[in-house]
Amino acid sequence: MGTISKALEMLNYFSRKRPEIGLSEFVRLTGRDKATVHRHLVELEKNGFLEQHPASRAYRLGPAILRLTGVREASNPVRRILRPIVTGLAEQTGELAHASLLQGNVLSPVFHADPLAHGVQVHFDEAELLPLHATSSGLAVLAFAGPKLRKQILSADLQAFTANTIVDPDTLSMRIEEVRHSGFSYSDRAFDGEVTSQAAPIFDETSEVIGALSVAVPAVRAHEERLRTIATALTAAARSATRSLGGSYPEL
Amino acid sequence: MGTISKALEMLNYFSRKRPEIGLSEFVRLTGRDKATVHRHLVELEKNGFLEQHPASRAYRLGPAILRLTGVREASNPVRRILRPIVTGLAEQTGELAHASLLQGNVLSPVFHADPLAHGVQVHFDEAELLPLHATSSGLAVLAFAGPKLRKQILSADLQAFTANTIVDPDTLSMRIEEVRHSGFSYSDRAFDGEVTSQAAPIFDETSEVIGALSVAVPAVRAHEERLRTIATALTAAARSATRSLGGSYPEL
Repeated sequence: MGTISKALEMLNYFSRKRPEIGLSEFVRLTGRDKATVHRHLVELEKNGFLEQHPASRAYRLGPAILRLTGVREASNPVRRILRPIVTGLAEQTGELAHASLLQGNVLSPVFHADPLAHGVQVHFDEAELLPLHATSSGLAVLAFAGPKLRKQILSADLQAFTANTIVDPDTLSMRIEEVRHSGFSYSDRAFDGEVTSQAAPIFDETSEVIGALSVAVPAVRAHEERLRTIATALTAAARSATRSLGGSYPEL
Repeated sequence: MGTISKALEMLNYFSRKRPEIGLSEFVRLTGRDKATVHRHLVELEKNGFLEQHPASRAYRLGPAILRLTGVREASNPVRRILRPIVTGLAEQTGELAHASLLQGNVLSPVFHADPLAHGVQVHFDEAELLPLHATSSGLAVLAFAGPKLRKQILSADLQAFTANTIVDPDTLSMRIEEVRHSGFSYSDRAFDGEVTSQAAPIFDETSEVIGALSVAVPAVRAHEERLRTIATALTAAARSATRSLGGSYPEL
């Protein structure tokens, strides 16, 4: 791995549960020597990707990230467009809704909304990258992605996150075909053993699939009727998002 | 400059006017050789900081930035807190308002709102880092920052952006003292020859100054009464932002 990747990957250790990380914790997390880790931290901080807490000296994600989000959103306002759609979807279904965008061969969450309408709610960690083969969002994207990405995933050594994760390429290939016909995907406890989710793909102005909208339900609440209602809301929201992004939805 | 900084600084070439940059344009902008530039681009893309347009192969800022903004905002919701305050300030004054956060010895814009209430409006580029000595936001921050940062700026070789930029350390030192007493700053065509701006500092829960709110007015419209009205709205907004960030405003 190159130096740049080593430094950038350090940013992925931050999460809602771990908003601050000190030097020695970074050494432990990365398994690299202290001098190297420190050098990387200094460069990330100098460029505003990290900032140091004035008292504890622990690092947290820095203001440059907010600025770059502003720059990206000015020309490519995906987050601004998806935000009200995801919020509406969460309110309409009473369940956790999220949007994620394709980043290489994983999905990167961009926004989620939690209506907190029930005593039990799916916990969503926006820091976690979503694998394509094990999530409903990933299946929705794979079904409409180009052959290159599909081939890459189907020929990879697929990780089993739960007993329900599809790791057999033939089974996965069949599921992808089904999603391609129905226009939305379903994933039952394949990434998290307690969560059932559904997703629909979203497309940009070039009609390339760029990500997915998803609604995640605690498996205990995933009754057929509720899932049907959610699927209807989800496909309507994905069509609306695609329209707002200047894309057109494929004929199914 | 280290490899990591070289790569990260490439992200700063993106702006509203330049949302996509191709390989050869990056070579020209950085003045580095093509092989090095390409290697940096590949690593930035692999980590989701850049994405390549499927047809043109030009690069634009990638989805990892949106995800990291989500992670930062979950624990440190500065953008979410400042957004409605900046929007309200713009609506109330009818002028462009923005918030920026301290990043090393410059300010990094995080959000701006443009009410488009007049035929002539300040153009704000959220990609541009704001120098401390030449902007009202910078003066507001310098006035309440620790002695280390102030000393660093006062001993630096200060760039003149216009004929009005203060480059003399003694004059700058005096201005900083004034701002420290009044609690808000004023900058007349010192960064952009056509823009007058005012700013007030904002503080976080540790009572450290973290950035500033500012309202920028085309110099042709910067009459005394308008500036007084803006100053009142600005200081109220900065106090409100500081309260929402868990900080307390210093006694002036």
